[in-house]
Amino acid sequence: MTTEKSLIDSALRGWKFNVERAEKLFGDLSPEQLQQEVAPGKNRLIYLWGHLTAVHDRLLPLLGIGERLHPELDSMFVSSPDKSVPLTVSGQSLKAAWQEINQKLWESFSKFSDSDWAQRHTAVSKEDFEREPHRNRFSVLLGRTTHLAYHLGQAALARPAG
Amino acid sequence: MTTEKSLIDSALRGWKFNVERAEKLFGDLSPEQLQQEVAPGKNRLIYLWGHLTAVHDRLLPLLGIGERLHPELDSMFVSSPDKSVPLTVSGQSLKAAWQEINQKLWESFSKFSDSDWAQRHTAVSKEDFEREPHRNRFSVLLGRTTHLAYHLGQAALARPAG
Repeated sequence: MTTEKSLIDSALRGWKFNVERAEKLFGDLSPEQLQQEVAPGKNRLIYLWGHLTAVHDRLLPLLGIGERLHPELDSMFVSSPDKSVPLTVSGQSLKAAWQEINQKLWESFSKFSDSDWAQRHTAVSKEDFEREPHRNRFSVLLGRTTHLAYHLGQAALARPAG
Repeated sequence: MTTEKSLIDSALRGWKFNVERAEKLFGDLSPEQLQQEVAPGKNRLIYLWGHLTAVHDRLLPLLGIGERLHPELDSMFVSSPDKSVPLTVSGQSLKAAWQEINQKLWESFSKFSDSDWAQRHTAVSKEDFEREPHRNRFSVLLGRTTHLAYHLGQAALARPAG
């Protein structure tokens, strides 16, 4: 394996590990468990899961993979804080969206070439990218992996005993 | 910049960003604030900071950089859960240790060549590494970055108002 491939492989393994961890943590919770706050007065589990699902959906256009699959999640989970707007999704519908989005991402990630990863993402212009070459797809992958871990740490605090 | 260098640069930026975030979050807390739990019955802020400091210290031998600087932290912050043993450190001494350790790591990271990152870490044998080439230094760097983010997400829940 070349050094490049080895570095990308490490990052993809880290991504996949955390995506699977999230599915395991959130995927089998009851509607009541999903209403639990991670700490008193803080986000509920369903909000964190919806937030992560929406942020991953936004990766589709950001990485040039395609159109968003679930833009309807943003008004509930990105532009509004928890408990400020009514949620029109269930745990089951979130689980289906999470799986659909992450499967599409994974299929595309597996096809990216080494140099694809070092290319700019779609939210940076050609001119800005010349000055700031770190604004590439690989940085987005790593950044979203730590974003996922950040919220997984919070969600783990509310892990129901039964 | 070559693709390799660009990938490594992304990972180092992510590491640095989170190390600085931790120092900002923990570094100026009063002794009373450090006693706060991130959620009722969960780890205290001082425990999380000590844990992160110890885990980063362990990177020195793991990545072949050198001897540990603060092995005394393990008995309080790695092998024991919070509140099970008396802490013999203060916020100030942890801050000094955190800075010392992370500065040494950063200096070494800056000197690693591209292929250094793809080499095995010291906890994997040559034989195992042939079968499992992803057990390299770069994977450790990425894994410890998500470990840091995981606990930063928890610590942020207890961020004191004043």
